[in-house]
Amino acid sequence: MNAPSESVIPFVRRHIGPDAAEQRRMLDQVGYDSAHALLEAAIPESIRLTDALDLPSAVSEEAATAELRAIAGQNRVMRQMIGLGYYGTHTPAVIRRNVLENPAWYTAYTPYQPEISQGRLEALLNFQTLVSDLTGLDTAGASLLDEATAAAEAMTLTRRAGKSTSNVFVVDSDTLPQTLAVLRTRAEPLGIDLHLVDADSPDLPEDYFGVLLSNPSASGAVRDHSALIERAHSDGALVAVASDLLALLMVTSPGAMGADVAVGSAQRFGVPMGFGGPHAGFMSVRKGLERSLPGRLVGVSKDSAGRVAYRLALQTREQHIRRERATSNICTAQVLLAVMASCYAVYHGPVGLRGIAGKVHRTAVRLATGLRAGDVELVHEQFFDTIVAKVPGRAEGVVAAAAGLGVNLRKIDADHVGVSCDETTTDSDLLAVWRAFRVPSGSHSSTTSAIPSVLSRGEDYLRHPVFSAHHSETSMLRYLRRLSDADFALDRGMIPLGSCTMKLNATTQMEPISWGEFAHIHPFAPADQARGYAKMIADLAGWLAEVTGYDAVSLQPNAGSQGELAGLLAIKAYLDARGETEREVCLIPSSAHGTNAASAVMAGMRVVVVACDAEGNIDMADLDAKLTEHGPRLAAIMVTYPSTHGVYESAITQLCERVHDAGGQVYVDGANLNALLGFAKPGKFGADVSHLNLHKTFCIPHGGGGPGIGPVAVRAHLADYLPGDPREKTPVGPVSAAPFGSAGILPIPWMYLRMMGAKGLTDATAQAVLAANYVASRLADHYPVLYSGNKGLVAHECILDLRGLTKESGVTVDDVAKRLIDYGFHAPTMSFPVAGTLMVEPTESEDLGELDRFCDAMIAIRGEIDKVSSGQWPGDDNPLKAAPHTAQALAETDWPHPYTRAEAVFPAGVTAGKYWPPVGRIDGAYGDRNLACSCPPPEAFGD
Amino acid sequence: MNAPSESVIPFVRRHIGPDAAEQRRMLDQVGYDSAHALLEAAIPESIRLTDALDLPSAVSEEAATAELRAIAGQNRVMRQMIGLGYYGTHTPAVIRRNVLENPAWYTAYTPYQPEISQGRLEALLNFQTLVSDLTGLDTAGASLLDEATAAAEAMTLTRRAGKSTSNVFVVDSDTLPQTLAVLRTRAEPLGIDLHLVDADSPDLPEDYFGVLLSNPSASGAVRDHSALIERAHSDGALVAVASDLLALLMVTSPGAMGADVAVGSAQRFGVPMGFGGPHAGFMSVRKGLERSLPGRLVGVSKDSAGRVAYRLALQTREQHIRRERATSNICTAQVLLAVMASCYAVYHGPVGLRGIAGKVHRTAVRLATGLRAGDVELVHEQFFDTIVAKVPGRAEGVVAAAAGLGVNLRKIDADHVGVSCDETTTDSDLLAVWRAFRVPSGSHSSTTSAIPSVLSRGEDYLRHPVFSAHHSETSMLRYLRRLSDADFALDRGMIPLGSCTMKLNATTQMEPISWGEFAHIHPFAPADQARGYAKMIADLAGWLAEVTGYDAVSLQPNAGSQGELAGLLAIKAYLDARGETEREVCLIPSSAHGTNAASAVMAGMRVVVVACDAEGNIDMADLDAKLTEHGPRLAAIMVTYPSTHGVYESAITQLCERVHDAGGQVYVDGANLNALLGFAKPGKFGADVSHLNLHKTFCIPHGGGGPGIGPVAVRAHLADYLPGDPREKTPVGPVSAAPFGSAGILPIPWMYLRMMGAKGLTDATAQAVLAANYVASRLADHYPVLYSGNKGLVAHECILDLRGLTKESGVTVDDVAKRLIDYGFHAPTMSFPVAGTLMVEPTESEDLGELDRFCDAMIAIRGEIDKVSSGQWPGDDNPLKAAPHTAQALAETDWPHPYTRAEAVFPAGVTAGKYWPPVGRIDGAYGDRNLACSCPPPEAFGD
Repeated sequence: MNAPSESVIPFVRRHIGPDAAEQRRMLDQVGYDSAHALLEAAIPESIRLTDALDLPSAVSEEAATAELRAIAGQNRVMRQMIGLGYYGTHTPAVIRRNVLENPAWYTAYTPYQPEISQGRLEALLNFQTLVSDLTGLDTAGASLLDEATAAAEAMTLTRRAGKSTSNVFVVDSDTLPQTLAVLRTRAEPLGIDLHLVDADSPDLPEDYFGVLLSNPSASGAVRDHSALIERAHSDGALVAVASDLLALLMVTSPGAMGADVAVGSAQRFGVPMGFGGPHAGFMSVRKGLERSLPGRLVGVSKDSAGRVAYRLALQTREQHIRRERATSNICTAQVLLAVMASCYAVYHGPVGLRGIAGKVHRTAVRLATGLRAGDVELVHEQFFDTIVAKVPGRAEGVVAAAAGLGVNLRKIDADHVGVSCDETTTDSDLLAVWRAFRVPSGSHSSTTSAIPSVLSRGEDYLRHPVFSAHHSETSMLRYLRRLSDADFALDRGMIPLGSCTMKLNATTQMEPISWGEFAHIHPFAPADQARGYAKMIADLAGWLAEVTGYDAVSLQPNAGSQGELAGLLAIKAYLDARGETEREVCLIPSSAHGTNAASAVMAGMRVVVVACDAEGNIDMADLDAKLTEHGPRLAAIMVTYPSTHGVYESAITQLCERVHDAGGQVYVDGANLNALLGFAKPGKFGADVSHLNLHKTFCIPHGGGGPGIGPVAVRAHLADYLPGDPREKTPVGPVSAAPFGSAGILPIPWMYLRMMGAKGLTDATAQAVLAANYVASRLADHYPVLYSGNKGLVAHECILDLRGLTKESGVTVDDVAKRLIDYGFHAPTMSFPVAGTLMVEPTESEDLGELDRFCDAMIAIRGEIDKVSSGQWPGDDNPLKAAPHTAQALAETDWPHPYTRAEAVFPAGVTAGKYWPPVGRIDGAYGDRNLACSCPPPEAFGD
Repeated sequence: MNAPSESVIPFVRRHIGPDAAEQRRMLDQVGYDSAHALLEAAIPESIRLTDALDLPSAVSEEAATAELRAIAGQNRVMRQMIGLGYYGTHTPAVIRRNVLENPAWYTAYTPYQPEISQGRLEALLNFQTLVSDLTGLDTAGASLLDEATAAAEAMTLTRRAGKSTSNVFVVDSDTLPQTLAVLRTRAEPLGIDLHLVDADSPDLPEDYFGVLLSNPSASGAVRDHSALIERAHSDGALVAVASDLLALLMVTSPGAMGADVAVGSAQRFGVPMGFGGPHAGFMSVRKGLERSLPGRLVGVSKDSAGRVAYRLALQTREQHIRRERATSNICTAQVLLAVMASCYAVYHGPVGLRGIAGKVHRTAVRLATGLRAGDVELVHEQFFDTIVAKVPGRAEGVVAAAAGLGVNLRKIDADHVGVSCDETTTDSDLLAVWRAFRVPSGSHSSTTSAIPSVLSRGEDYLRHPVFSAHHSETSMLRYLRRLSDADFALDRGMIPLGSCTMKLNATTQMEPISWGEFAHIHPFAPADQARGYAKMIADLAGWLAEVTGYDAVSLQPNAGSQGELAGLLAIKAYLDARGETEREVCLIPSSAHGTNAASAVMAGMRVVVVACDAEGNIDMADLDAKLTEHGPRLAAIMVTYPSTHGVYESAITQLCERVHDAGGQVYVDGANLNALLGFAKPGKFGADVSHLNLHKTFCIPHGGGGPGIGPVAVRAHLADYLPGDPREKTPVGPVSAAPFGSAGILPIPWMYLRMMGAKGLTDATAQAVLAANYVASRLADHYPVLYSGNKGLVAHECILDLRGLTKESGVTVDDVAKRLIDYGFHAPTMSFPVAGTLMVEPTESEDLGELDRFCDAMIAIRGEIDKVSSGQWPGDDNPLKAAPHTAQALAETDWPHPYTRAEAVFPAGVTAGKYWPPVGRIDGAYGDRNLACSCPPPEAFGD
């Protein structure tokens, strides 16, 4: 087929909301002749680019799709029997189409506004219930990034939650190699010594604070760890077990064996392999440890009418609150994938899942029987889905023979081959494997289980009715629709979240992630089967380096937090290599994202806070003082640019110079890159390293709170210290399980860059900044706009100061945020970076109609606040305090409020497309006091 | 890649709603031991099958997908430059994903309940506005099946609306060949003589009632037909013009040339070719002819609160009302495709569309310039997108050479080749074409238009704001979401529509229609490029023959109505071939679908109605009388089985025998096949021909009112008389434009049959009948159930008689239907086949929870009716009369009703997933009196 024609309307005009006439009107409001003139005024000349970005010319949606199709065609889809935590799985079509491919799910934001997030919160509660049930532990969180990072989090959890003062963490040597590699990366800066043991004859050290066991193990063995766990407990250590949800349908759970923590991946619950991710990592803990859980935790609470309602629980323990006292930097989760996995469980139900597990196990037993019948010796007698065969000197040949038959096996060493079965394994796959091993094929039916009865699961699971209610596709479809209808996402309206860049996630960008050539590649498949991925990754790394001005980019970090860690580890390793091992102070401005400080601590640094001045800029005098104080111990400074206050600080070049002069490295957080692309490059204005958020500037949708991707970009001197491949020995180890992290969604930013080109990206930046200044200008008479830089301009976001109004009226930012729901909006970012304010980031994708609708709503809300201030409405009974208003409240016979029903629910007079929150204002504190983190019983919903 | 493994949970368990335990409870209610025992009791033994269906064993969703992938791989996707009414087009991804692939759109029913259909009605109104604007005529309908059948409808429209008594219809000889072929098929039984003329020098007959011109013509010529139209008008004839919407962006419209009618296809507005369909045909007419328009027409009216509201207009002119007096049998439209085309126009807007048309035209001009530069003579100087080249003796070679370069051209005859450009045509395509013609390539830029200024469009179009509001993807996405949120479809809840079989349309069935290997094949592509289609069609035809007991099946009819016509034409041709030309009477029971009678008239038959008895069965005495009366003139009887009353008539075998004895043929309407599959075969119990509704029994979704497919199945003696290929001379001509009709959606029934297998289909039938009997049993104490057959059982649907209650209370079926909206249901079929009743068809896909929710709602409504009867609620103010209740009504400060707000909107006490109708009860008559069929101005929505 020939190349597609170019579109009459280029993609950039689909991506940018306002058309030329609308842009003109916005410029008139702001007082500039052109968006580029506005940007020249806003961005300090010292950092402004003079040359255009050097990117391939933009192509149409059809042409980009065709190019990526050709690249995908260079991948080779095989039957994947490598195992190692990644398995073939059938994504039920109803879930693929109605979750993974449905913008109502994938364009949603993290459920920080729970009233508009009840659908995804319910799905996540299903996920937590699934994990908690199967692992046999009391409380599970709503997803971690992957098994390896979850194991690392378990390591630090056992350290801080236990009583031991030891620095030794014991690890089962039969643990997934990538998990071991990430543990090493994470242990070293924290001063933790890893002590590997053979689980069959553990040689335990004298003193240790925690243990990580694997069951099933990396080599497939299923073991009874009860005795070992008991011994560890008596030694004062806590024990985590890495496990597999499918195996746990048949095997005694970690909880039943006495473990304190379980970790693993939910990938094989319907989530495609995608060359390594994204998938939902999980963690669950026994009672008493729930307040130590890293990451997000969904809990049950109640709303203003006393109805059951869900929201994120125990948020005060998270990094964005605890900052440098945080115990984890985990922020982005894997919500979309956790939703898929939980829906897979809902759709199959306990009986269906047990059937799948049983079939997988029987297949593995048949495989083993056939091999044994052909005189191949197996390493373990007890297994679930994976066997390891001893083939002295023949491993290479066996693996190659299987590959020739379309099947990938795992070459462990010259003498051992691993084979993993999954729900996609067929009879012909077994025949191919037997043939590769050169054993005779046969039916080899065996009724013997390879799971001994002592390990055979007796505990029940998934008894909650939700897991038995939706087994027909019709019912499942309606359940998914009902959940998504409860939520507000970008497909309904604007989500003006400062610092989160909620902009268009174009369908053309999204479609390729469903292609089999991307979805079904194992992360450890031979390189010659992943040439398409290699090409796409090389393109993307090159383009990202160009637009940021850096020399090298690693796409491995699978969240911004991991990118931060990777960047700081690179700095530390570089300094260490230069012999400057004493440099361990990381300067962080008081306005920084909470993750910055948490990541610095995890990288083994000491955080020193630098003050900000009244305009929100870094206080250069304080910086100088801190540089003087810590000079020889200075490792780095972490700043965000434009600042978290949404300002282009003009002192940025000076700042970089001074830090460099003091021997430190400059880390620029790329969270706000949407205000820079095409106009300035951090790598050129003085920074040494940045992480980028592909789920912000580069259009990976937020997925309701993940997946994200946080590549790290560095200047040449740091390139050797980028995260390593988990299979290789590298100066800095891996920060994620898979060599290329969440490679499966990289088509999204690839398509974005390919369709936007240099001019498109630059125009988008200009429009994003214009939109923020337009909003600031329209709202300035109604709310004080905090902070602005050059010529009174903001960057791509603006902060509305409500503190005065709150003082006058008692109406808080929370009230305004909830009231915006009645107007049909997601709230702006609340109280970050300044308490009592709202930070608005409109992005380039909102057209003028929607921007005006938002401004009009905010102005109308200001009028409502005034009515409270003036006493027209009581402080405790007004549409702000009672927001959001539900249809249920409207249906009550009594209407106790001093404002009308119509003022409550149709405040702008618009009824079409009205979003109805399913619950009223949620009482978060109640849920934290009465913590419940799995599906509530149906009776809870009764009157 | 290897074959997929079989699922642990087979597809049939996803398709059938109730699980084994639920089925057990339903059987207990009905009083049978097993569903099969129930069916044995219900279905007359005389017709019951003893053998299982002979179909390939069912395979899993993954295996069926893999099989169909392999079949699709036998198609070869080329650059299609054949033209002839089918063009390459870019479906905008946002429309593909959020309309074509979104169950909220594709599982919706025909908008007969307008209060729950405002979204698709708005999209169809956009379609009508688009067609009306571009054709320059006042009123357009909401889609016909394709251009050829639209032309045939235009022929009969000009006949009945004009004053001429002539039987001659003049046709431009430069009309699409398939349109000519269908016109021939349709003219003959109606006694219309077609008179072909050369539009450049028309040799008009003395007397004629109508004219069909083509502009652009089949050969691409653009002509000024004004003079010819004027002459036809002065001769007393009406004039229709077949045209092309993209061309009309640049060329003077048919309306401006004086035409009365315009027809054509909207395919190239973003609808994939799909080997011929489905696409939206269109028709528009000048003022004064709107009441003669065939098919569906959306109009603007108002609701109970005086708000603008949409609904189908002028329904009394449609076949389901007019029966044998109908002038068209058109029923199913092409709603989903019309929605796509209208969304394409909304997304591009007038400027974007003009840009696309301009680009296409410039490409064609460049093509022509290059050919002329290479001394190739062109037939026409004036064209839009298509040229015809004279290549004496070389046509075959040129076409073959182009094919070798990946491009399909049109071989007209040995000396002429046609080439059509479209929005997907690229520079490299032009190079290939030039190379195929053996002319030197060059840039050949030309600024000269090939549309003379006299034909250059001056009229404005698409000035309604909706065509200028949604040009960014974000805005378009939200518009689509808002529209679909206004509607109720299967993804929200049950649609228990008797005779319409609204059951699961599984995602796995739907996914393949988006594959490029199916989507991008031209219907006239060489056979060796469409081997995949040939295989799929052969499979499907064979399987359908097996399950119905017939010998041959044609998949050409693109709607049930066309299948009926094809079946009757086959009967007529067969009888004629036997010399029994006098046989022209078609017996039709009084309870038949309206289309039956309309189709018989179109097939040139005379309809004689046969009475039904009190039980709804055909009155055998009346049948005998009619057979005696019409014996030698008897052509056929058309019956539905099970009957439209939802009863297995036990006299069916007798009936067939008697008709056969009288020399007639038996036509069994396959509308109710969902009650037969696996248990009885019409082709075996006495019928000679049936049409099937693939959009009922075989899971093609209703798409909001289309597409449908109505294959015709016949016994061997009728096989020669199935619809012919439009390119060949056949005993009976084609009934649709494309040889295989709506081939692009045949993957849906193929997948269904492949995944269900013999047992699955049989189980589904049993469950469908069980569900209907369960509902009948649960509701029998609350509503009289009309008609039942053997042992008091119904078939797959049941009729609830409300006439007594209406008499007592004044509450009508309409009130109940609207009240069901408040309960979250689409109404059952109203007043068909018996006025004052509701016909409920639950299908096999509804689980027990949903069936009970429906029964509970009906029982609760019965309680509400009793409150009206008893005077507790006034007859003119009760929740039934005021239904459906909107959120706007709820938000009013005053609540004037004697029932509570909660009783109004949450009558079952359930709030989760509440569907809110965007408008109240619609006043249809108002709209018919004040007919308006294009988008209302924005001011209409003001207060």
